[in-house]
Amino acid sequence: MKFSEINLLDELQRPELTELRGIFTRRSVTKGAVAFHPETDENLVFVIASGRVRIYLGYEEKEFTLGVLEPGDLYSTHAGCYAQALEDSTLMVTDVQSVKRCMSEIPLFTRTMVRVLGQILNNSFSIIGSLAFKDIYTRLTSFLHKEALRTGTPCSEGTELRLALTTEQLSLHMGATRQTVSTLLNNLVREGIMVKKGRSIWVIPDMEALHRQTQQ
Amino acid sequence: MKFSEINLLDELQRPELTELRGIFTRRSVTKGAVAFHPETDENLVFVIASGRVRIYLGYEEKEFTLGVLEPGDLYSTHAGCYAQALEDSTLMVTDVQSVKRCMSEIPLFTRTMVRVLGQILNNSFSIIGSLAFKDIYTRLTSFLHKEALRTGTPCSEGTELRLALTTEQLSLHMGATRQTVSTLLNNLVREGIMVKKGRSIWVIPDMEALHRQTQQ
Repeated sequence: MKFSEINLLDELQRPELTELRGIFTRRSVTKGAVAFHPETDENLVFVIASGRVRIYLGYEEKEFTLGVLEPGDLYSTHAGCYAQALEDSTLMVTDVQSVKRCMSEIPLFTRTMVRVLGQILNNSFSIIGSLAFKDIYTRLTSFLHKEALRTGTPCSEGTELRLALTTEQLSLHMGATRQTVSTLLNNLVREGIMVKKGRSIWVIPDMEALHRQTQQ
Repeated sequence: MKFSEINLLDELQRPELTELRGIFTRRSVTKGAVAFHPETDENLVFVIASGRVRIYLGYEEKEFTLGVLEPGDLYSTHAGCYAQALEDSTLMVTDVQSVKRCMSEIPLFTRTMVRVLGQILNNSFSIIGSLAFKDIYTRLTSFLHKEALRTGTPCSEGTELRLALTTEQLSLHMGATRQTVSTLLNNLVREGIMVKKGRSIWVIPDMEALHRQTQQ
């Protein structure tokens, strides 16, 4: 996730917050380890001090990535998600009672929460869209992947795909409404699988990532 | 959604906020009308002044309810959702630039945002769970509905269902892991379709609502 202009970590370093900093304990998590899972009993909030942490929902063998937290981002252990370190990471952990103090003494704390929740919510909506239209989504990503293999040209950012189809024509081809195809294309952009370069011009940074979407 | 202890509406009535109140315009929405939809160009934030507003995702003919906002709750028009008045409602509307002022002058504004986002996120996770396990979900709700019809007894809150099965046994019966069945049961509780009364004792407030789940 993008850093906000003012980082919560910088904010927490302010001299007048020395005492407040004491409510956090530091926890190291090695790359690949799951720091928190949905059955975690502790009701905690954690701030990423260093590293990157992936937040995801996991059911049976299926995983749905909701976001990747970066330094200064924060999240809760009580949201029913897994939190996995993508690299060696340090977390600043505190209990929910202490969070109430943070919320009243550091306005940026609550604002960071709104930003992170908003982004995770956005990704949740993408996932709901993809699942609700699994058939159309599979058809669409398969079509895009096939077209990129057939007519795509390499470019500095990946594979450039020029579709000789408007969204309307693409929708007819998929047997779906323009609104649905447009939503699913937006989801692909939001997830970074496709980059829109212009009218019907797309870049696919990672063909393998697009291919994986066809098999979800 | 539950009122927070201090209501944002009361907060906004504070005399020192007279000037700030001026950034809001009032908008009436009649019962059943969609106040905002995903293609809304305006980037606004609205506070429910009276009435109730349903927030939902809509794709083709499918709808996924994310939450019902009550007086004092707030939400954004820019989140890709529909907002429909469930009864005649009044909204206090402001643009996103003015929201920044609210955020710095009224801490409760941001805290209300966190609460609403958190609840909508929770419901999104339920929806993802149900969609990801459509087959198991349908099997589970069909089983519960059939058992309630067969062995359920009327009680003051609806239909009481005593399952002679532990979650482990229920999972085996569904051909799913205990973790998945437990997640899906939690979702049914969160959505108010089932109420847990004790070990393997459930109340179904509305049998029709449970039946609808089997046909999603």
